[in-house]
Amino acid sequence: MFTEADNVAPAMTAVLTAVLTEGPLSRVGLARRLGLSSAAVTKAARPLIEQGYLQELAATERSGPGAGRPASPLAIRADREFFVGVKITADELIGVVCDLGAQVRASAHRPLPYPDPEHVLTDLGHLVDDLLDGPGDYRARTRRLGLAVSGDVDRATGLVRYSPFLHWHDVPLLDLAEKITGLTVTVENDVKALTTAEHWFGEGVGAESFALVTVGTGIGCGLVVNGRIVSGSHGVAGEIGHIGVDVSGPVCHCGGRGCVEAIAGTHAIVGRARERSGRPDLSFDDAVALARGGDQRVGAVFAEAGNAIGCGIAAVANLVGPSRIVVSGEGLAAYDLFETHIRAGFERQAFGAATDCPLSIRPLPFEEWARGAATVSIQAFVAS
Amino acid sequence: MFTEADNVAPAMTAVLTAVLTEGPLSRVGLARRLGLSSAAVTKAARPLIEQGYLQELAATERSGPGAGRPASPLAIRADREFFVGVKITADELIGVVCDLGAQVRASAHRPLPYPDPEHVLTDLGHLVDDLLDGPGDYRARTRRLGLAVSGDVDRATGLVRYSPFLHWHDVPLLDLAEKITGLTVTVENDVKALTTAEHWFGEGVGAESFALVTVGTGIGCGLVVNGRIVSGSHGVAGEIGHIGVDVSGPVCHCGGRGCVEAIAGTHAIVGRARERSGRPDLSFDDAVALARGGDQRVGAVFAEAGNAIGCGIAAVANLVGPSRIVVSGEGLAAYDLFETHIRAGFERQAFGAATDCPLSIRPLPFEEWARGAATVSIQAFVAS
Ligand SMILES: [Zn+2]
Ligand SMILES: [Zn+2]
Repeated sequence: MFTEADNVAPAMTAVLTAVLTEGPLSRVGLARRLGLSSAAVTKAARPLIEQGYLQELAATERSGPGAGRPASPLAIRADREFFVGVKITADELIGVVCDLGAQVRASAHRPLPYPDPEHVLTDLGHLVDDLLDGPGDYRARTRRLGLAVSGDVDRATGLVRYSPFLHWHDVPLLDLAEKITGLTVTVENDVKALTTAEHWFGEGVGAESFALVTVGTGIGCGLVVNGRIVSGSHGVAGEIGHIGVDVSGPVCHCGGRGCVEAIAGTHAIVGRARERSGRPDLSFDDAVALARGGDQRVGAVFAEAGNAIGCGIAAVANLVGPSRIVVSGEGLAAYDLFETHIRAGFERQAFGAATDCPLSIRPLPFEEWARGAATVSIQAFVAS
Repeated sequence: MFTEADNVAPAMTAVLTAVLTEGPLSRVGLARRLGLSSAAVTKAARPLIEQGYLQELAATERSGPGAGRPASPLAIRADREFFVGVKITADELIGVVCDLGAQVRASAHRPLPYPDPEHVLTDLGHLVDDLLDGPGDYRARTRRLGLAVSGDVDRATGLVRYSPFLHWHDVPLLDLAEKITGLTVTVENDVKALTTAEHWFGEGVGAESFALVTVGTGIGCGLVVNGRIVSGSHGVAGEIGHIGVDVSGPVCHCGGRGCVEAIAGTHAIVGRARERSGRPDLSFDDAVALARGGDQRVGAVFAEAGNAIGCGIAAVANLVGPSRIVVSGEGLAAYDLFETHIRAGFERQAFGAATDCPLSIRPLPFEEWARGAATVSIQAFVAS
């Protein structure tokens, strides 16, 4: 709260955030939007303009009836600064360079032969160099790197407490990555990073509440409630994958029974498709091909998976009532096999007006994860 | 936000809220706690002291090293004003008089022979008169009445859109109750009212996130996330009763399958106990007696119910990670039959550190619902 006259930093953050996420706004519009005085907005905007992060557009509107001076909207200068974002998976690094407006300017992949921290860090250094020293010459205007990792991540310290797919325990990723890249690093859980991207620059802009469900090896969920990301008092939140939807269903790796992930995670689908088809060598792609080709036994595996996901999504809608739910993730490359069943499970289990919650079901290009990582880095910059 | 010097009302609300919910605080402590200047706190506290809502306690602490003046903590004067709270059920009105600190000073019940709005309103008028004109002479210092009703309530307008147990549709309860009582009325959903009471005056004080689960005819849930009650963008939130926990379970009145309420609501338990025992005349109390007496078939019904509730509670913990979950409600009069199964279901299905979320499982005296209604009225007063 801006009670002290000299306390300009929070107002600068508020002004920059509003213009970044909502587009060009006049000073008067900003003052109304943020509950600040016009003087406070003007004072906060001045250093942002001087440093080149904001620019005044040509005057297009008047500030109100009787106001003599035309209001010049403030807009960001997207190419003032660039941000690297990298998603670390078990077998690949995916990296992007984004501008201040979270537009992807460049991208690169790098296979990860060894997912131990030491090798990953070396490869990360090479990937960042490739991105910043390639065409575009981003190096000079890039100071920050965002990293996204699946699992239990402490954003405040940049410690990866546990990442199951990488088999990492207590890796001080922030410190290691700052040493190797020389950039200011932010580390975030990958689903939260993607949710931040949707909340600041995607379908969740301006939403008081919002959910993003990711379908793939794991099934995760990022939640925005009462305007902020939900973090969980005990470090756990958004674990839609371990909601129990079938009390007599398969045992999950978490120890639960009939978890959404135990029915609809990639490994679960492959396991169940092998069982039903009697082909113990089946891959996920084989299962997709069989189901698309009309194999009813394998098709039923996808139907049950979609239903379980829909049932988990309905639990989210029934409990927190988000304004909108985006369902995405690399698992949705097989989107055509899932969609009707996800919707059927959701509609059956959503209570009353919760059925009105719109679902956007769409596949997710892998670069989006890296863009999410960059977005968290933009957010950290804006807060600084 | 307090940017305008003359904008004292929000600061008054913030000061009164902090002292109400957290107990006596010095001006310096309040300033620190609320991010306000000391001058702003002093200015906001003055009219509250003059009007008798706050009082200065004897000085007990110094405001800091080097500070010459002892700091007199501010405390509420609980008997400055009283608030009536009434819970409306299908067959009874339960009313209380609370002081400003939400302590119950008087209570009264009144049977409801006819649950239609007209009869209920007449009985409500009598109940309020009994409470205010009885011993204690609360009438002179009471201006507000809070009402709690199950179902879909629009708090802003005081319209009861739909209350299934009362069979009410679109009843303008606020307007009707103001006409008959002459008091300023607030209407809230009963579970939300109870959650407000826990958040302001109970186990949820100071919690950024918090959940209250009520077990009875319906199974409901009130949620506080990121410091505020969750309302749901589409009007639905906290519907833990309709989370599907058994894909091949019984069909629910909502159209879902294997909902928590279809397994653990009072009606569901009676129905299942009748089926298993072969006694079609069994009441809920009979079922409780049989299970307590060692009837294994009926005992299994309570075990399954407890497990379903625990599974639903785990979904809450996995998704939003509340700091604490209180499980209560009139259904928990049979607490001894439920508790171990609720805990077992929760522990099986809670993911990782979500298991650390403490569960308080306890029965709920019916007056607590009425106190919840009074609390919402206190909250409306403080915000005004
Ligand atoms: Zn699980
Ligand atoms: Zn239901």
